[in-house]
Amino acid sequence: MSKLFEEKTIKTEGIFQGKIIKVRVDTVLLPNGNTATREVVEHPGAVAIAAVNERNEVIFVRQFRKPVEETLLELPAGKLDPGEEPLTCAQRELEEETGYRAKEWKHLFSFHTSPGFSDEILHLMLAEGLETGEAHPDGEEFLEIVWVPLEKARQMIFEGEIKDAKTIIGILALDYLVRENAR
Amino acid sequence: MSKLFEEKTIKTEGIFQGKIIKVRVDTVLLPNGNTATREVVEHPGAVAIAAVNERNEVIFVRQFRKPVEETLLELPAGKLDPGEEPLTCAQRELEEETGYRAKEWKHLFSFHTSPGFSDEILHLMLAEGLETGEAHPDGEEFLEIVWVPLEKARQMIFEGEIKDAKTIIGILALDYLVRENAR
Repeated sequence: MSKLFEEKTIKTEGIFQGKIIKVRVDTVLLPNGNTATREVVEHPGAVAIAAVNERNEVIFVRQFRKPVEETLLELPAGKLDPGEEPLTCAQRELEEETGYRAKEWKHLFSFHTSPGFSDEILHLMLAEGLETGEAHPDGEEFLEIVWVPLEKARQMIFEGEIKDAKTIIGILALDYLVRENAR
Repeated sequence: MSKLFEEKTIKTEGIFQGKIIKVRVDTVLLPNGNTATREVVEHPGAVAIAAVNERNEVIFVRQFRKPVEETLLELPAGKLDPGEEPLTCAQRELEEETGYRAKEWKHLFSFHTSPGFSDEILHLMLAEGLETGEAHPDGEEFLEIVWVPLEKARQMIFEGEIKDAKTIIGILALDYLVRENAR
């Protein structure tokens, strides 16, 4: 974990404590000795699940997203509870949102969605060996399940029809892995 | 632009106006008639630039990111000025951050970095035909330029060494395009 050009915090001011996010403003010491402020959105972290069946079809959820005022096609995903392991969270969220369970799980990699202003980390999980479980979305979640062939999903990214970062990452990573194994 | 499961705003409360982000809380009417609150971080939008030379080497910047307390390897990127076209922004940011100009530009696609809580949109631009210009990072930017071969960058994603979402998307998309053309 590199700390090149590190910015030491010399003051931190809490701005907002929401249900999901917190906001703070840090005053930092820059490498040249000047100070600057950094606006930071704290997020609990989340998982996204690339769940794929033996015909290379991927399960998506269609969900309205208030910040962008649009219904997006996304991989199933959910926020981590405090102290929760990504795998536990992924297993819970996949079944809650889609009604499927998976026999095989693999953590592919983790990434920061927008490190310029937020600490959100997203753990990308591959789920295979799907079997029917029981869907039970929570009371504020309205979503629709959609199966899309992997190749079609990849095309939809380049055509601008899939617009969610974690979903684009999950599909491009899975597409790469599938094509590598196929060789 | 689908509006399935749309949530109508019935009240909106401004929370914070920062230099970069704004925060608000919307009260919304759910499809079942209940109400809920949605925390929204407004962002001006940004561009990310996948700049690649004729040897399939990609230009990266290494930059400390306060929210994650780590120095990340990222594609050159920058926020849109009000009303600015993504191409104009990309041309400015590439030269400011790296000292390179590009003769050929192409918009690949755009995506939302974290649509669950933010409206940030990121426009991914491909830049080719690179030639030397003049670097002049702004006074609060401390960064280091690094060239990484495309194949190595792709490996670094799966090894967890490249952790920034826009960068992962740019590299996996470019890797796909290069391998398709090579066929």
